[in-house]
Amino acid sequence: MVLVSPRNPLNIGAVARAMANFGFERLKVVAPFAAHWQEARSAVGAEALLGAAAETATLVEAVAGCTLVAGTGTLAYRKPEQRVVSLPDLGELVEREMERGGRVGLVFGPEKHGLTREDLSYCHLLVEIPTDARQPSMNLGQAVAVCLYELAARSARDRTEAASVEGRGPAAAAERLELLAGVVERTMVAADYSPKTMRGANRHDLRLLLRRLGPTERDLRRILGLFRRILWRLER
Amino acid sequence: MVLVSPRNPLNIGAVARAMANFGFERLKVVAPFAAHWQEARSAVGAEALLGAAAETATLVEAVAGCTLVAGTGTLAYRKPEQRVVSLPDLGELVEREMERGGRVGLVFGPEKHGLTREDLSYCHLLVEIPTDARQPSMNLGQAVAVCLYELAARSARDRTEAASVEGRGPAAAAERLELLAGVVERTMVAADYSPKTMRGANRHDLRLLLRRLGPTERDLRRILGLFRRILWRLER
Repeated sequence: MVLVSPRNPLNIGAVARAMANFGFERLKVVAPFAAHWQEARSAVGAEALLGAAAETATLVEAVAGCTLVAGTGTLAYRKPEQRVVSLPDLGELVEREMERGGRVGLVFGPEKHGLTREDLSYCHLLVEIPTDARQPSMNLGQAVAVCLYELAARSARDRTEAASVEGRGPAAAAERLELLAGVVERTMVAADYSPKTMRGANRHDLRLLLRRLGPTERDLRRILGLFRRILWRLER
Repeated sequence: MVLVSPRNPLNIGAVARAMANFGFERLKVVAPFAAHWQEARSAVGAEALLGAAAETATLVEAVAGCTLVAGTGTLAYRKPEQRVVSLPDLGELVEREMERGGRVGLVFGPEKHGLTREDLSYCHLLVEIPTDARQPSMNLGQAVAVCLYELAARSARDRTEAASVEGRGPAAAAERLELLAGVVERTMVAADYSPKTMRGANRHDLRLLLRRLGPTERDLRRILGLFRRILWRLER
């Protein structure tokens, strides 16, 4: 991760924080404006990462050792001279580069105007974050967070592709739904809610309703308990 | 987009900026700490959006009209009580909800500790941003940017894919679930199902249950009708 001439130390700290959030480690800062940027308070939980960051005088020095350099920016104000990659497609390129033993540098420009044409001339490609055309300019810390999320989420997605786990327990079995339907129906009758002529239609609708709701077995036990109690009170 | 008790106006501004970046418009702020949050300087290019943001006293008011409420947070410090969805999977759910005419609310907690267990009981699901286990806690503005990027990038990705429409109507809105919860609770009391000491816990569980079941407005009217009838009989 390379920041070119960031002006506000709070933004540098925010970048460090996002890096820690998504498991990235090496930060380089090119020609920063402020002197004490390594003590930025905004680097919550990333103080060590920020302290270990290197400062260089030029972008060339900062990207030394990188086999793929990706500059970031919007296309709104420029005619790109290098390959343009939309952020959602960056992950695959980065992964391929790492697989073949390469090292990737992601470069962000200063807050006000982003990377210059010259900065970009050190980049293999220009990464575009797909923002709204009416307001394309992002806050530096937010832009970094979005990029690192995309890269981290992508590798996580690939790792767990198969296992899609839902946070719910298993749905209640058919015979349990029927049991509940029976108790609810008796309750309807006890409460004079279901006139005789409507009973068949109501029973049908109730079955559909319970399947639409799809309660888990635990949910079903809870609902059943309430209706049994109500029924007992109504029939008393 | 709903922010619950944000402390730092600069963060609120950063949220507004990210919303403008990714084409989102409606911001609600619940019980903010600072008075002049609508003038936050950090809302670069999003001054109008921030000025049009609504302030409410409670989360319930803020999510009125929403048919799917998604709370955000990390699982690091809590045992979730609702369905957990990893951010990369949220887009599909949001889209499906919008396709069937629903409205989605995305809720973020205060900077220090995030949403409380009670806040989350108003949510259908908990969205987890997949962060590094050693440093899961994100800056508020960055977390919002990452979520909105995911949603915006996804819908751009999918616009071309085939639409899969479900045969259900829109889910019932948040305030309707509250109405139903109130009637069910009164029924529980009338049936001596809910002893006084358990009432708070039961109310909490009932909120969770209704959101797990996710009834449509039509389903809700039907259930409400039955419980009103029961209540009338029990209280007679």
